[in-house]
Amino acid sequence: MANVDLSVPQTQKVAIFDKVGGPVIVKEAPVVQQKDLKPGQVLVKNIYSGVCHTDLHVMLGDWPLPSKIPCIGGHEGAGYVVAVGDNTPEGLVKIGDPVGIKWLADSCLSCEQCNKGYESTCLDAKCSGFTVDGTYQQYVVSYARHVTPLPPNLALDLAAPIMCAGVTVWKAIKSAELTAGEFILISGAGGGLGHLAIQYAKAIGLRVIALDTGAEKKALCLEVGAEAFVDFKESKDLNEDIRAVTGGLGPHAAIVAASSAESYEQALDYLRNGGALVAVGLPRDATIRANVFFTVLRSLRIIGSYVGNRADAIQAADFAARGLVKTTYTIKPLDQLPKVYEDLSKGAITGRIVLDMWA
Amino acid sequence: MANVDLSVPQTQKVAIFDKVGGPVIVKEAPVVQQKDLKPGQVLVKNIYSGVCHTDLHVMLGDWPLPSKIPCIGGHEGAGYVVAVGDNTPEGLVKIGDPVGIKWLADSCLSCEQCNKGYESTCLDAKCSGFTVDGTYQQYVVSYARHVTPLPPNLALDLAAPIMCAGVTVWKAIKSAELTAGEFILISGAGGGLGHLAIQYAKAIGLRVIALDTGAEKKALCLEVGAEAFVDFKESKDLNEDIRAVTGGLGPHAAIVAASSAESYEQALDYLRNGGALVAVGLPRDATIRANVFFTVLRSLRIIGSYVGNRADAIQAADFAARGLVKTTYTIKPLDQLPKVYEDLSKGAITGRIVLDMWA
Amino acid sequence: MANVDLSVPQTQKVAIFDKVGGPVIVKEAPVVQQKDLKPGQVLVKNIYSGVCHTDLHVMLGDWPLPSKIPCIGGHEGAGYVVAVGDNTPEGLVKIGDPVGIKWLADSCLSCEQCNKGYESTCLDAKCSGFTVDGTYQQYVVSYARHVTPLPPNLALDLAAPIMCAGVTVWKAIKSAELTAGEFILISGAGGGLGHLAIQYAKAIGLRVIALDTGAEKKALCLEVGAEAFVDFKESKDLNEDIRAVTGGLGPHAAIVAASSAESYEQALDYLRNGGALVAVGLPRDATIRANVFFTVLRSLRIIGSYVGNRADAIQAADFAARGLVKTTYTIKPLDQLPKVYEDLSKGAITGRIVLDMWA
Amino acid sequence: MANVDLSVPQTQKVAIFDKVGGPVIVKEAPVVQQKDLKPGQVLVKNIYSGVCHTDLHVMLGDWPLPSKIPCIGGHEGAGYVVAVGDNTPEGLVKIGDPVGIKWLADSCLSCEQCNKGYESTCLDAKCSGFTVDGTYQQYVVSYARHVTPLPPNLALDLAAPIMCAGVTVWKAIKSAELTAGEFILISGAGGGLGHLAIQYAKAIGLRVIALDTGAEKKALCLEVGAEAFVDFKESKDLNEDIRAVTGGLGPHAAIVAASSAESYEQALDYLRNGGALVAVGLPRDATIRANVFFTVLRSLRIIGSYVGNRADAIQAADFAARGLVKTTYTIKPLDQLPKVYEDLSKGAITGRIVLDMWA
Repeated sequence: MANVDLSVPQTQKVAIFDKVGGPVIVKEAPVVQQKDLKPGQVLVKNIYSGVCHTDLHVMLGDWPLPSKIPCIGGHEGAGYVVAVGDNTPEGLVKIGDPVGIKWLADSCLSCEQCNKGYESTCLDAKCSGFTVDGTYQQYVVSYARHVTPLPPNLALDLAAPIMCAGVTVWKAIKSAELTAGEFILISGAGGGLGHLAIQYAKAIGLRVIALDTGAEKKALCLEVGAEAFVDFKESKDLNEDIRAVTGGLGPHAAIVAASSAESYEQALDYLRNGGALVAVGLPRDATIRANVFFTVLRSLRIIGSYVGNRADAIQAADFAARGLVKTTYTIKPLDQLPKVYEDLSKGAITGRIVLDMWA
Repeated sequence: MANVDLSVPQTQKVAIFDKVGGPVIVKEAPVVQQKDLKPGQVLVKNIYSGVCHTDLHVMLGDWPLPSKIPCIGGHEGAGYVVAVGDNTPEGLVKIGDPVGIKWLADSCLSCEQCNKGYESTCLDAKCSGFTVDGTYQQYVVSYARHVTPLPPNLALDLAAPIMCAGVTVWKAIKSAELTAGEFILISGAGGGLGHLAIQYAKAIGLRVIALDTGAEKKALCLEVGAEAFVDFKESKDLNEDIRAVTGGLGPHAAIVAASSAESYEQALDYLRNGGALVAVGLPRDATIRANVFFTVLRSLRIIGSYVGNRADAIQAADFAARGLVKTTYTIKPLDQLPKVYEDLSKGAITGRIVLDMWA
Repeated sequence: MANVDLSVPQTQKVAIFDKVGGPVIVKEAPVVQQKDLKPGQVLVKNIYSGVCHTDLHVMLGDWPLPSKIPCIGGHEGAGYVVAVGDNTPEGLVKIGDPVGIKWLADSCLSCEQCNKGYESTCLDAKCSGFTVDGTYQQYVVSYARHVTPLPPNLALDLAAPIMCAGVTVWKAIKSAELTAGEFILISGAGGGLGHLAIQYAKAIGLRVIALDTGAEKKALCLEVGAEAFVDFKESKDLNEDIRAVTGGLGPHAAIVAASSAESYEQALDYLRNGGALVAVGLPRDATIRANVFFTVLRSLRIIGSYVGNRADAIQAADFAARGLVKTTYTIKPLDQLPKVYEDLSKGAITGRIVLDMWA
Repeated sequence: MANVDLSVPQTQKVAIFDKVGGPVIVKEAPVVQQKDLKPGQVLVKNIYSGVCHTDLHVMLGDWPLPSKIPCIGGHEGAGYVVAVGDNTPEGLVKIGDPVGIKWLADSCLSCEQCNKGYESTCLDAKCSGFTVDGTYQQYVVSYARHVTPLPPNLALDLAAPIMCAGVTVWKAIKSAELTAGEFILISGAGGGLGHLAIQYAKAIGLRVIALDTGAEKKALCLEVGAEAFVDFKESKDLNEDIRAVTGGLGPHAAIVAASSAESYEQALDYLRNGGALVAVGLPRDATIRANVFFTVLRSLRIIGSYVGNRADAIQAADFAARGLVKTTYTIKPLDQLPKVYEDLSKGAITGRIVLDMWA
């Protein structure tokens, strides 16, 4: 960060939507100044922001909970601290620190949920790009205790997508509580979350089965570490094909990052006895339908896993800094966000899009 | 057992059904003799057998898996070892030992599932009254390594219902992985499993909310240790009433032992964030429908829990022997099993029925 | 707290020592005023303070780490919030709240240790009566995020000793990771920590063996829930006598709250294979000597457990509020602290001493 | 195993000692025939056996427990099943199966220890080369339920040292309960256990610090995956040098496989707060001396870890079969065992010695 300009201008470029359904518009807007930061808040000069499908869901009102209006979306930021609110507890961050901004902008750190490490289910949680303005802007107000200190050797464009996609799959993998050497299936393996999940899983000694479709995704999955790829469109017997990879019994866990509801129900079939389905993908209006009889007799577990806490984010970034996990992405300027959303709607995006806030 | 006759006659009384749908018939049948026991098998002179709703389901073919035909049902036995097969490993049991017979009659003890303690999901598991003949007979062939050694001070009529109902709820409660002092709701609290679940939960320091209906069940639940009772028929707002008991946030876990499918979906509503639904009840054709969005955002877990392993059974019996857990039951002679099934179908049974094999 | 006077005077009574070795002197001193509180700090009108042997160790310089000088000791406070520093995060405490003050006055809540729940090993931890002034005063400056919110139905004199003795043993018991129904031995069972440990252990379904000496301690231990008492002075074969209680194999864990070094080494003998020794007592200059061969071949664990975190304190207080855990104590006025220390040195104190700050 | 001769001759070559202190003698001895196998026993045609320092300790009577006399040592065997005792439970092994023989030859699989997975602390455990004859012979009697089924693609000379060295360190690493990305130090990293520990730790995503001495060991440690090497003879400040690798705080755990007592006490210094010392090495007459004050205040844990159970062995072999873990070893004929012991006594062995039973 040798030559980063840490001064704070009066105006900046932001991408904002004014009503449910959008559209998102890129325009000039004021920058919050140091004197207006509350105790505990920081101002981050945002360099890159990943684009997550969730941002589009939020704008379209696809979810049962509403966002703030108007709303600056985005929750995969990476930049530098340029201002700290007065009376912020010391020792958390200082001007110039590289930090990540994640979905979970803040939580109380004192309730039962936070005490257990479930910071994302804190009733006072604030969410970037949802209940507070997010990372589709050049200067973001965030929270000293929740921004993620980034390793100095981690490039910020690589850091950005770790802040949601990376954290989310890292936490989900841990939630499955597997022993190294066991089989984990990633459903939606070729997508933004999925291809990171393969890498985290492999980095901790799990054997990875990638489930997705198409030659391009197959190539990506195998390249980043999957031991086998099963194409759900080509397969004539999905259970059979998946189980064959594992020697017959099926994987010990499945991380379902796919955006189709049926991905969930398939998982309950191909998992081995005692297996865990970890839900992270959020298809609109989706329901997991679990047959009670087999859930009990096969001792299956269904685990909802929702982003991650501060420690999860630090760990997720550390793997990226050590080169064990690398996002496949394309950089685009912030101005092109409307077009990116359009492409996302059509499913025409391969890999992750990372926005350059300053291009 | 001072005066127990440990000799083995040629014939005995059994309750058996010959085809799916029943009926169950009580008749004379031969007793397996010592010389016909395989290595590892024992012959148990069965004194009492609990009656579990599952036995009726099995006979009626309600489940997606078929039983052996003809079949002697029953899987809550308590009696004395009267013969041991030649070449059975030493040190497991000896003639005269009081033992329990549980649903899980045998498992291999060497596969991955058994090694992890998931003995009930062993692919070679044998189930009493389902894949091998069960405890509705006076002399039962079972397996030295899987019969449960019973504490000498535990009366056999008290031991019998522990072998399925007790073990099942004890394991389910442990599966929720709660900290003492947290709230656990028992759905179906006044039933055979439920009223035992209240006692096990209380014995380990959990705070118990009983969910069921009717004055009789309310009285039983409060008597055996529930801190509060919520009547699902009387309640005008089930979530509200349940959460009120917990100070607003809802219970940390729910053990669903009820036989209605909707009990499962209610649980996903009233649980607090991070909460666990543990499924043990097996309503016919039931499905748990879990909204993906809230399962993820509330980090809920759904855990299938299926009976228990050898250690679970020993622990469950130990609580009963120390007087911390006591089944509410009525003793009936084996001859009356057909009538008991009839009453069970009508829901006309209060508490557990324990059959006296010798009355 | 209906009629508690929440106003803040200029002066108060404190017990303070000016140099290593003491003596402790009770005198008038100024009260910190609201305007002088830093962000995050609160002023607590302290009603009761327990006296812990540690306070005497601190004054005498018995430990390898030095205290602040001059120092107001004490770390088992219970009182009411009477002032909150400006710019303290909202939602943590408000004027009038009953709160406890524990050994761990503050920690950063953001480091790896805090994130894992090991708040007491945070490198920025502040300790009441050791590195910051403690609870031997009428108005204590403490930290909003670390004071323990107390249940309204818990009397403050009962709450005070929970803040160190209670929290410490509760955490230690949890650290042993036992299953309910297993045997736990409390070494030093009749002392301040020990007699609380018996109660917490029993409340979560453990079977408790008390190890101590004398008829008075025996009576106390059995009264509060121990299943057996072994007198280490009377016993001719300690291992034999302890193991006999457990049916031969020895306890699954031992909480060593005793202040003698040999208590530690005894535990490594009488524990069963796989057993856990949890260290909480801090005898001066003591060393645990563990034979490597038997530590390995018997798979023993030695676990250092140091007070507890915020959640542990909340849980510990909750058990007391529900009447499951009750300290045996004598109330004395603050003025008598010098005499209490004298008695403590001689081992002439039975049960806990709780100081009334206002008597 | 295409052309392996599975027939059973009358005599074989064995290495045996007749009295405490040795010497070990290689001679002809009878082979146990199928008809003499007890139910549950198998005869294994042993192809390779690793040599563990423990074997020498056993012969020399260095340990507080005596071995059988006379005794055929060895507990790292790999070969083929050539006979199965009558009335052995089916489904465990069959003639021709490649299997490993580990230190833990048998355990009851039914006691509390076995049920918890602590098979090595079963009171009925049988130990290869200690309480039953071991693997320094061409045909070994072992136990169907405890021999380790080996992956068909794992060469037997690679499998042999996994059966003790591999299993032991794999289990020890798991016992530390770390999160991937954390630092683990291997004390004695360049030795037989140590260099395998590096590989297992790395394979599950831990960051490995190797502690040992000498250029040769340094080269080996770095080659097999250590991130840093600290030479305890060269270091001027061991704590400083170790902590520097971790960014200042010290490793999260240390596996002490070294054969010097001081290695244990060093670990308690350089570990970070909350850290775990896992003891596996068995220096003669060694004692761990842990200061109580710092053990408590730093919340340190000392964990005895003793070989591993059946599942641990299967997992350990699986890592080797997938090429993630590879022993550095030299093959020697069984005849040279006396010379190998001589070299071992002098510390003149680099890497592991694997005996070829048929050379």
